[in-house]
Amino acid sequence: MRIVVDAMGSDSYPAPDVAGSVMAAREYGVEILLVGDEARVRPLLEAQNPGSLPIRVVHAPEMLTMEDKGMAMVLKAKRKNAKNSMAVGIDLVKSGEAQAFVTAGNTGAAAMTAYFRLGTIPGVERPALAPLFPTRTGHCVVLDVGATPDCKPEYLVQFAVMGSAYAEQVRGVRNPRVGLLANGEEGGKGNQLVKDAYPLLSASSLNFIGNVEPKELIGGAADVVVTDGFSGNILLKSSEAVALFLFEIIKEKLGSAPVWVKAGGALVRPTLRSMRKLLDASEEGAAPLLGVDGLVFIGHGRSDALAIKNAVRVAKLAADANVLDSLRGEIAQKLSQPSPIISQGQVTA
Amino acid sequence: MRIVVDAMGSDSYPAPDVAGSVMAAREYGVEILLVGDEARVRPLLEAQNPGSLPIRVVHAPEMLTMEDKGMAMVLKAKRKNAKNSMAVGIDLVKSGEAQAFVTAGNTGAAAMTAYFRLGTIPGVERPALAPLFPTRTGHCVVLDVGATPDCKPEYLVQFAVMGSAYAEQVRGVRNPRVGLLANGEEGGKGNQLVKDAYPLLSASSLNFIGNVEPKELIGGAADVVVTDGFSGNILLKSSEAVALFLFEIIKEKLGSAPVWVKAGGALVRPTLRSMRKLLDASEEGAAPLLGVDGLVFIGHGRSDALAIKNAVRVAKLAADANVLDSLRGEIAQKLSQPSPIISQGQVTA
Repeated sequence: MRIVVDAMGSDSYPAPDVAGSVMAAREYGVEILLVGDEARVRPLLEAQNPGSLPIRVVHAPEMLTMEDKGMAMVLKAKRKNAKNSMAVGIDLVKSGEAQAFVTAGNTGAAAMTAYFRLGTIPGVERPALAPLFPTRTGHCVVLDVGATPDCKPEYLVQFAVMGSAYAEQVRGVRNPRVGLLANGEEGGKGNQLVKDAYPLLSASSLNFIGNVEPKELIGGAADVVVTDGFSGNILLKSSEAVALFLFEIIKEKLGSAPVWVKAGGALVRPTLRSMRKLLDASEEGAAPLLGVDGLVFIGHGRSDALAIKNAVRVAKLAADANVLDSLRGEIAQKLSQPSPIISQGQVTA
Repeated sequence: MRIVVDAMGSDSYPAPDVAGSVMAAREYGVEILLVGDEARVRPLLEAQNPGSLPIRVVHAPEMLTMEDKGMAMVLKAKRKNAKNSMAVGIDLVKSGEAQAFVTAGNTGAAAMTAYFRLGTIPGVERPALAPLFPTRTGHCVVLDVGATPDCKPEYLVQFAVMGSAYAEQVRGVRNPRVGLLANGEEGGKGNQLVKDAYPLLSASSLNFIGNVEPKELIGGAADVVVTDGFSGNILLKSSEAVALFLFEIIKEKLGSAPVWVKAGGALVRPTLRSMRKLLDASEEGAAPLLGVDGLVFIGHGRSDALAIKNAVRVAKLAADANVLDSLRGEIAQKLSQPSPIISQGQVTA
């Protein structure tokens, strides 16, 4: 088992990326290929006293950043001899030298690089980033949250098949309930994309439960929720922002409160901490980029070493469970027949 | 000052709608026209002992519900002699008999009915629902959150002009900072709509500050944020849902906690209550539907009597401040000249 970690991914790169890789190698016995600027990565690696841990540095002199976007990014993602850490790392997965790629870098850049270098699983036209969203009863796989901001109705059906397979194979959910994110529970509500995707999902063999509003999603009504990458990103980011906002208000109010209230606050602190953990991305580490023909995991830019370690863990779990083969099988079964749902001509090789 | 209230609007209609109207007439000295099924409304009104309060019941035998959608809803919204409470109520504003219309009913149905019966302000193509979103530093006007789920880039510019004028006139914000909701702060990030709207907003005379993510919105970076009605609805609903989720978890955890933690919880309860108030829709009561040629306010379906009363208050404030004339003036100034931004031919009369 060999996993590639983008050493130049996180906002505070390369320190958390290197430290998390060392933790993962130590804890999971997995081999790590650390891709990045060797002059910056190696000293940090040595400082971690890796000893005989199976970690190898692969030099990549360039990197993609949050500034990379538009056509310039597409060109960097596609270029044959690209020297940036994402391209070099993903090529190691494509060549079979490693089983999965992990990065905490620019989501759009990672998705684009994976899309162009690995291609998609036959039957899938675009990739979808599929994180776990905490709910009242457990978790829900939400996809896409940013890899494909503009979607056709057919993409949402493909996302649904992939999300359903992922929930079943990796999360152990039987016959996952699939919802369509909308601004109204009733079928017929939504923007044009939702209205067009609804009948396609209804006609599919999935366990489609109809439109789902954020309230139902958080209430645990669905195991999988599909949406375009723009709306999904707004859902995810606003949920994170509101949770953080509330935590900060509680902290501030308690800070300036009379001493007896402060004492009360100290007593509820463990409760607040466990809630925060529930919403903390670093618990899960990274989300799978479903649909590309290789295992790719994208973590939060804010990732610390613990989040990187956990990202390697989820990547290892997916590789162990042979998720890619499962996805290929499910997609072949549910999407391969020529149907009005998928225009085969558009499938990207 | 005469304000129309849809007696059949709220989820628990007509009780909260009637009770809130009586409270508003009593507290603000405003005249109320209560539109709805007279046989159901009048007994509830009498039970409130309205005495000599200036409240009149206007009979409307039909109503639009959450089930109304698609073409059937459009027909009900447009029909000349429509007998539903929204159409009857909005016609009272159109004829000049009342200055504003307030409903806690189906947002889409109310927006559609207002759009077809009042038309839009010249220069505006579609209406936008513009609630106040709580931020770390105050409030932000977010539009649209559900009236127009599918938008063209030009609509977002029109929303920006209206939101900016509303923030300035009603909220007293000088030179409001206008942001564009996006999945990345950098210009060039976003879905196609956002990418196309960005240069139009940059070229406008508005104080455009660029892309804004939910985190910045909640942080107070903008006074106005524009988005399509679908994404705006997801933003609003997910924020509400996460806040409610956290409140419920705190309540549950404290309920099952050891007695000394419970005591601490009792002490922070006032803090939690003030946070909840901050996020509570019933404080503001209703959001203005900007862009239609008349004052229309749409409240949450969950509205109680207090929320209805507050909705009447914000409607009265807007009528007092002559918001409609201000909007007309701002739009004429910023959007009237023939420009690539507005295709005049598409303006709805």
